[in-house]
Amino acid sequence: MIRPSDDQERYELTSPTLLPKASGFLWNENMMIHMNCRGYAVAQFMQPEPAKYSHAPNLEAKTFMQPEQPYYAHHPGRFVYVKDEEDGRIFSAPYEPVRVLPDDYVFSVGKQDIRWQVQSGNIQVEMTLGLPKEDTLELWKIKVKNLSQTERKLSLYPYFTIGYMSWMNQSGEYREELQAIVASSVTPYQKYQDYDKIKHFSDKTFLLAEHQPDAWEANQEEFEGEGGIMMPSALRAERLAGGEARYETPAAVLQYRLQLAPGEEREFRFVFGPAHDEAEIAEVRRKYFTEKNNRGEAGFVQAEREYGAYIREGKGALEIHTPDADLDNFVNHWLPRQLYYHGITNRLTTDPQTRNYLQDNMGMSYIKPEMARAAFLTALSQQEASGAMPDGIILHEDAELKYINQVPHTDHCVWLPICLSTYLDETGDDSILEEKVPFADSSEAVTVLDHINRAMQWLLRDRDERGLNFINQGDWCDPMNMVGYKGKGVSGWLTIATAYAFLVWSDICGRSGHAEEAEAYRRAAEVTNAIVNEHLWDGDWYARGITDDGVVFGVSTDKEGRIFINPQGWALLSGAADELKREKLLRAVEEQLETPYGVEKLAPSYTAMREDVGRVTQKHPGSAENGAVYNHAAAFYIYGLYAVGERDNAYRLLRKMLPGPDREDIVRRGQLPVFIPNYYRGAYRQFPKTAGRSSHLFNTGTVPWVYRCLVDGLFGVQGTKEGLQIKPQLPSDWQEASVKRTFRGAELQIEMKREAGVGAPEVYLDGVLAEDGIARGLKPGAQYKVLVKLPA
Amino acid sequence: MIRPSDDQERYELTSPTLLPKASGFLWNENMMIHMNCRGYAVAQFMQPEPAKYSHAPNLEAKTFMQPEQPYYAHHPGRFVYVKDEEDGRIFSAPYEPVRVLPDDYVFSVGKQDIRWQVQSGNIQVEMTLGLPKEDTLELWKIKVKNLSQTERKLSLYPYFTIGYMSWMNQSGEYREELQAIVASSVTPYQKYQDYDKIKHFSDKTFLLAEHQPDAWEANQEEFEGEGGIMMPSALRAERLAGGEARYETPAAVLQYRLQLAPGEEREFRFVFGPAHDEAEIAEVRRKYFTEKNNRGEAGFVQAEREYGAYIREGKGALEIHTPDADLDNFVNHWLPRQLYYHGITNRLTTDPQTRNYLQDNMGMSYIKPEMARAAFLTALSQQEASGAMPDGIILHEDAELKYINQVPHTDHCVWLPICLSTYLDETGDDSILEEKVPFADSSEAVTVLDHINRAMQWLLRDRDERGLNFINQGDWCDPMNMVGYKGKGVSGWLTIATAYAFLVWSDICGRSGHAEEAEAYRRAAEVTNAIVNEHLWDGDWYARGITDDGVVFGVSTDKEGRIFINPQGWALLSGAADELKREKLLRAVEEQLETPYGVEKLAPSYTAMREDVGRVTQKHPGSAENGAVYNHAAAFYIYGLYAVGERDNAYRLLRKMLPGPDREDIVRRGQLPVFIPNYYRGAYRQFPKTAGRSSHLFNTGTVPWVYRCLVDGLFGVQGTKEGLQIKPQLPSDWQEASVKRTFRGAELQIEMKREAGVGAPEVYLDGVLAEDGIARGLKPGAQYKVLVKLPA
Repeated sequence: MIRPSDDQERYELTSPTLLPKASGFLWNENMMIHMNCRGYAVAQFMQPEPAKYSHAPNLEAKTFMQPEQPYYAHHPGRFVYVKDEEDGRIFSAPYEPVRVLPDDYVFSVGKQDIRWQVQSGNIQVEMTLGLPKEDTLELWKIKVKNLSQTERKLSLYPYFTIGYMSWMNQSGEYREELQAIVASSVTPYQKYQDYDKIKHFSDKTFLLAEHQPDAWEANQEEFEGEGGIMMPSALRAERLAGGEARYETPAAVLQYRLQLAPGEEREFRFVFGPAHDEAEIAEVRRKYFTEKNNRGEAGFVQAEREYGAYIREGKGALEIHTPDADLDNFVNHWLPRQLYYHGITNRLTTDPQTRNYLQDNMGMSYIKPEMARAAFLTALSQQEASGAMPDGIILHEDAELKYINQVPHTDHCVWLPICLSTYLDETGDDSILEEKVPFADSSEAVTVLDHINRAMQWLLRDRDERGLNFINQGDWCDPMNMVGYKGKGVSGWLTIATAYAFLVWSDICGRSGHAEEAEAYRRAAEVTNAIVNEHLWDGDWYARGITDDGVVFGVSTDKEGRIFINPQGWALLSGAADELKREKLLRAVEEQLETPYGVEKLAPSYTAMREDVGRVTQKHPGSAENGAVYNHAAAFYIYGLYAVGERDNAYRLLRKMLPGPDREDIVRRGQLPVFIPNYYRGAYRQFPKTAGRSSHLFNTGTVPWVYRCLVDGLFGVQGTKEGLQIKPQLPSDWQEASVKRTFRGAELQIEMKREAGVGAPEVYLDGVLAEDGIARGLKPGAQYKVLVKLPA
Repeated sequence: MIRPSDDQERYELTSPTLLPKASGFLWNENMMIHMNCRGYAVAQFMQPEPAKYSHAPNLEAKTFMQPEQPYYAHHPGRFVYVKDEEDGRIFSAPYEPVRVLPDDYVFSVGKQDIRWQVQSGNIQVEMTLGLPKEDTLELWKIKVKNLSQTERKLSLYPYFTIGYMSWMNQSGEYREELQAIVASSVTPYQKYQDYDKIKHFSDKTFLLAEHQPDAWEANQEEFEGEGGIMMPSALRAERLAGGEARYETPAAVLQYRLQLAPGEEREFRFVFGPAHDEAEIAEVRRKYFTEKNNRGEAGFVQAEREYGAYIREGKGALEIHTPDADLDNFVNHWLPRQLYYHGITNRLTTDPQTRNYLQDNMGMSYIKPEMARAAFLTALSQQEASGAMPDGIILHEDAELKYINQVPHTDHCVWLPICLSTYLDETGDDSILEEKVPFADSSEAVTVLDHINRAMQWLLRDRDERGLNFINQGDWCDPMNMVGYKGKGVSGWLTIATAYAFLVWSDICGRSGHAEEAEAYRRAAEVTNAIVNEHLWDGDWYARGITDDGVVFGVSTDKEGRIFINPQGWALLSGAADELKREKLLRAVEEQLETPYGVEKLAPSYTAMREDVGRVTQKHPGSAENGAVYNHAAAFYIYGLYAVGERDNAYRLLRKMLPGPDREDIVRRGQLPVFIPNYYRGAYRQFPKTAGRSSHLFNTGTVPWVYRCLVDGLFGVQGTKEGLQIKPQLPSDWQEASVKRTFRGAELQIEMKREAGVGAPEVYLDGVLAEDGIARGLKPGAQYKVLVKLPA
């Protein structure tokens, strides 16, 4: 079974084989852990670049987070072996590595912890993982309970993998005085200049036990023996041998020998994580286990409480109640959590891509707008005086632009007004426009308004003679890297997006008293739209771009990559598409890009390199950018549909972004609906076998756009300068919905109902009709009741 | 059991659990495969940098070959599952992944193939791996034989892992027309400039079958199911499902359903490797399986024959018969093979470290001196006009200096005369000294003699005011990187080595008619030795160096790193140590550095960072450079012992470099004596648990020095300008030895015997006494008999 818990605070899965890759994730200020339902784990912390304390069995490449990363037998994990001392039978919780199918199994993903209940042979094991708010530590509780009618003798073996730490130096041993297994290593380096960095690293990994274990083993090979990880030979002995690892692979295995009366339960607590030295581990022991606070709590308990409060701070601006219970659950609980994660962690990079950083903070506008504000100023302080934005925003003094951020992209400027507008809608904080900020290459500080004017001017300048925007080595689509690297190719999407950015910026200029700029950018948008229609309209949809050699692509004569979603969605936003074009492109998207799992980014997927388009065409068909249901792009399109009032179309596609509700659909996607993955596998018409599968990757610019679809579109509760504009676009088959909207400190309980006889929607604020649908004069701390009557 | 085969052409191991990491390796012009006795494999080929076609289960870091690399459940491997169709029982050959202990097992490492015979439940599986001479391909024969009295129904499943190929694009499927599983991928890249490289890569991996299989599976996850790699679920079905991998992990599994009469045997042949496209695979099918040559052989058979001939070309200059059968086996069969491997492959790098390249080709002087000659000229063409040698030698136009070659080291010049002297001894080819070669930074071509004069002058200049040689960021000891990075610290070893290089160069100058230079360098050596004795003699041994801050280290007052082997061994060579010093340092080495497994590089091993010495002190105690029995350094020392006539000391240490002969010693070291590893684990007095274990890494500068110990020392059959100098240093307890020495095309059968009444050794060439022990006037193609009478 796959189900939300009754209180909707958790999501549950009742078999380890139904969704073998299902997972949940937890994060705090300094780390992230992605926990698979079978016990595998990927955990990262920042020092300052992402680092690991539980490693792969070989030297792993340092790279960005991978989609659809496979698990394998020795993948890092957190396991508990349980041995019946009387009959020698062994099982493991959660499921790996022994893979005995449990009699009963629940994998329960909460917002602030992840839990399993696993029952096998009348022994129940409960494992719970939580994090503290700041420390890079995993807090584990392991309970074991005798469900049988007789006394049971058991050995419980928590096994936390440490893996191949380093070729320079690694070891592991049990440290009596710490009651911990401590593994030590030195991060490999070759240049003496790097020593100053690595000497401060937390290169130790420890498993700290609250209760003294009866035995232990710190050497993986000696633990596993010929039995291997599935049935370690060391479990056959009465006691673990107490081995140590000396430049061998360390492991953290403890043994508790238990005698449990019928119904008896025992609880054990552990802390697992990295440390710089033994003193730090001793301090963790003191803080989490030994000392009590003035409530009489150990730090372990206090940390659970504080982390819960911290996560609850990340609630969104909406609480909905609609005919669609799964949507309610996702929007009320999981979507703001995923927004919050992005805003806090910046995806665990020190150099987030500029567009990601801006959009993640667009989302943060709904949760912690003061953090979004600071982030926008940080980003602008790294703008060049020419108006150009860098490819990544440096967040740490030692950080440098890495991976894809070393490749020049041309779209970063368009995100500035778009992301800022959400912040302004949500906060009404026009003061940000007058903040003075310097440039990366000039200490001259100018206002945010001037910064963004320069960004808009840069977009106006970075165009060819036709007025189409250059793509250089990529735009929003990173790997579309050979369209314009010779300096001539242009991006259809980027030109359209520029028109939209001008429109948005025109609005902002207008409402902040800069009528002249407002008019100029409105006209620039019109001119741009006209250029787009002249050069990019293909008859039934918009082309994706024009290559260095003048070849228009993403058009009906192409065999692969005939149609791309992005130019269509943004043409709805920019106003390029008139009604006729709109109808045509909507039909083209529905026929060629829509699948049961959402809208594909392009179709048909490329199956071979097309050199004039570039790397995207070498990506696996249906994966990531090459024809996947790429949710970020799908969300743009849905936002565009709402912008033109296509509420039923929009809702249908929005709904496909979440797995379910039917079980078969969830199983095919392979993940619990606790986050939106960056993509579902596409190429639905070409490779149906794999279509719909989740990438399992929760880093994605999708989430703020989905939130905007809900706020600005579906529920129509968008902020404006004067107040809250209420203009719902409920799907036609919904009779009602209720929304609790927090807005600039006020709380509005909004009931939306269809009523016979209503023509245009009517909005009543505390019983008083608001003629233009705008709830004005809202006071922070106050509560309001709003009634919205909608035509039947 | 661990035994050489009767014909000494192979080494055999009769249990997969006795030496779980035992391995053999094969190489050809373009690839290398390191095959573990249990079925795990590491294979690399050059395109132009080292690449893989059978990958780890995760994204693996690209790095140099690692010592003591652990194996794990999903490590790349070559396996065969065998299922009894009647009772469903399954085992696997060689041993992994099922780990059923076989009834009979032989892992047999040959010089030109690697073979297993595995017997379980009266079924015998024989697996043989060979390589062609040039193609990057594995040639596999798998035989299965029914040893029982009844007919048996079996399924045979060859399983060749492919692993996680790429996050950009990967797939796998069975291609009917090729009779092959073909997995495709695109090497990940992000910059369009890299596309021109990767588009030529061999990014496909294929398993090509000579015989049509009955079924197949190309998807690892679908093959394994919940059974995992140890007991794949797909084996339960009658037939494999014929699945494909679409951005999933590919696998190459075939199924043959067999009915075998009692005693019946079937043989299957396969080719496994990388390819650029399908056409290339079709060509491999034609070349290896379909077409016959004019002997009526398929290419598969022809390749075996040609590879055998190729490997036989790599025989050395010695064939010995002594009281030590294990030494005979190693020296006659395995040692020249390891020399040859280094000379051919340059350790599978495109930028070998200069000192490695020179020493590997010093070894090649005994095997293919024409290749050594070319290599010396290549190296000198990359010298700077200042005399300085670069840190690595670029062997491919696309290559660049990587890893440690980006760190400046100061020892590269000393290897020039030392390595060249071996070439001259062996060939008498003084013409090389007059070859004209340009510089890296100047097209002015000067003679090799002038090049090396400049190198010697560079060494004379790169010194402090005392005349001690700067160490900068390292010398022969790579990670000793913080002794002199501020520009003041000096290397004791390098200063001593410089004295020795002067001596060697003085000899070469002398014999090539440059008496003045000969005299100048002889004097320079004397002066240098005097400086060494003034500043580095610590009372009982020589110090290792003096740091930037003037701290002498490697001395008796140090708690860790008190004594280093290198300054001692080279002081024997340079003549710095007079008789009294010699006695003292010999005793110090024996007491502090000698272990049952050889001489340690330094002792006690560092257990914590010593910032004024550097990274070496952060390496794991007893590993690699930090206190291991580092065989390269041990070989220098042994060579030094022979230089001063310490024949019994030398032989004792030489013998420790090879495992055995007693089984317990071999088991502790964990490898078959088919190669000398770069180190055995040291820190014998600090961490006895792990001391003696092999690194399993066969890339090492040790081998040419061991060969020189045998040629110049133990058997005393060193070339000189005039002929072959015969001056054996047999251990005192050997009564005789015979040596077949090939030398400049002649073949000398040398019998060495102790005889009562002989005073000084007497050498008889075809019955005629050679007064000075030099066999002169040897003719290419001729055979000679030599009798050497030695004092009893």
